[in-house]
Amino acid sequence: MNTPVSPTDSLSPATAARLRVVLVGTQHPGNIGAAARALKTMGLARLVLVAPEDYPAEEAYRRAAGADDLLGDAPVVATLAEAVADCHLVLGCTARSRRVQLEEHAPRQAAALAVGRATAGGEVALVFGRERTGLSNEELQLCHAAVHIPANPEYSSLNLAAAVQVLAYEMRLALLEGATATTAEPVHPDETPASHAHVEGFFAQLGDTLDAIDFHKGRTPDSAMRKLRRLFAKADLTEQEVRLLRGILADAQRMARLAGQGGTGSLS
Amino acid sequence: MNTPVSPTDSLSPATAARLRVVLVGTQHPGNIGAAARALKTMGLARLVLVAPEDYPAEEAYRRAAGADDLLGDAPVVATLAEAVADCHLVLGCTARSRRVQLEEHAPRQAAALAVGRATAGGEVALVFGRERTGLSNEELQLCHAAVHIPANPEYSSLNLAAAVQVLAYEMRLALLEGATATTAEPVHPDETPASHAHVEGFFAQLGDTLDAIDFHKGRTPDSAMRKLRRLFAKADLTEQEVRLLRGILADAQRMARLAGQGGTGSLS
Repeated sequence: MNTPVSPTDSLSPATAARLRVVLVGTQHPGNIGAAARALKTMGLARLVLVAPEDYPAEEAYRRAAGADDLLGDAPVVATLAEAVADCHLVLGCTARSRRVQLEEHAPRQAAALAVGRATAGGEVALVFGRERTGLSNEELQLCHAAVHIPANPEYSSLNLAAAVQVLAYEMRLALLEGATATTAEPVHPDETPASHAHVEGFFAQLGDTLDAIDFHKGRTPDSAMRKLRRLFAKADLTEQEVRLLRGILADAQRMARLAGQGGTGSLS
Repeated sequence: MNTPVSPTDSLSPATAARLRVVLVGTQHPGNIGAAARALKTMGLARLVLVAPEDYPAEEAYRRAAGADDLLGDAPVVATLAEAVADCHLVLGCTARSRRVQLEEHAPRQAAALAVGRATAGGEVALVFGRERTGLSNEELQLCHAAVHIPANPEYSSLNLAAAVQVLAYEMRLALLEGATATTAEPVHPDETPASHAHVEGFFAQLGDTLDAIDFHKGRTPDSAMRKLRRLFAKADLTEQEVRLLRGILADAQRMARLAGQGGTGSLS
């Protein structure tokens, strides 16, 4: 999984190696091979496969052409959560917009974000769903933002490998741009971006707290949680900020417990 | 050959209809189909085939998916000269640069040039050579300039349809840029940025809540509030988000009051 890009390429191998492309539930093995080829032509080397339907397969290696090394190095895991557990930024490619309330970026913006984060030392995943059905809503909940290729609204059916090619191309342009910038900005220790797992831990505690303080009052919690996920995705939380927010939640939970013990008692 | 792009797409149909993609001597019919699909997803509709090796072919229609109308409309001609006879600008895509002395453009520049010329009423061709050997020197002589996708120098072997996808994508962006140059984007009501006064109202309530849930525990509140201000500044709050956050704070304050009434009572 740590195959670096060739040092003779003009990209920063360390930065490019922090960018992974994750294919979820791919149906046609040919698309996996074509995606590997698309990545390698753009100087990217990390591919992760989540529960591919028909893999390994000869067709994948045939379509990969000279990029079969990427296929050989690609881990196959069972869930998207597993594939992005150590990631600081997860971008989900969606064919249709507005299905979930995620901030949506064009490929160029997304590439700038991704390369910026990778340059600062973060692990970044770009996630592509199934050919026919894309990413499930649960899978999209694991993403910090969505990427939408501005396709023809009358016929937006990009081939999976073609979508990977467009995003990989924009990543390469952003990497080449970064390579020509003179110095990288040093990251302050307090500024360490929060890992995906820590952010998810915060959201779990946030959900528990909303229940405890009776925020929903009978309404379904989904809409509020979606909006809160989107809000905190925009904030790009650091590890320090996650600790601060979780401390506040812990105190709110403590109050709710006290209110439950005493408060309800005083009403009875 | 004059199939216009759909008028419900936001592109100018007249401009898009002046852009044609020419595939020269294509060896694999699957690539012709995939190229048609790539074009249609990007709102382009004109494909011209020069002496394809194996065509018509079922594989082409299979890979075209819903873009078989483009294949049906695509003229098949014998030479590149014939395919570009009426063109005002001919751009040749080359895998390797500097093979002939042509001005060379990156895809983005090339798209700007092409769309600029088409907007001014000119006919424009984007020419792609054979999978293995590209365009011959004679064919390159028919081009006004070359386009080079900045691929990994160690592995620059883009699939033909993938190269068409990248160029078609850049064309679409250039066309959309031309189309939106005049109109401003309306802001969704939920996306109204929060006013300064509303954000300050939120911070005041946040400070009160931290006191109420005894978050500070004797520490000075300044440092936590500074960090929280910074965090929410990064999130660029909308009015809707400020209302959501203040609703949560109100419930946490309510719990603290209940805890104070009952909780403290139960300890005394």
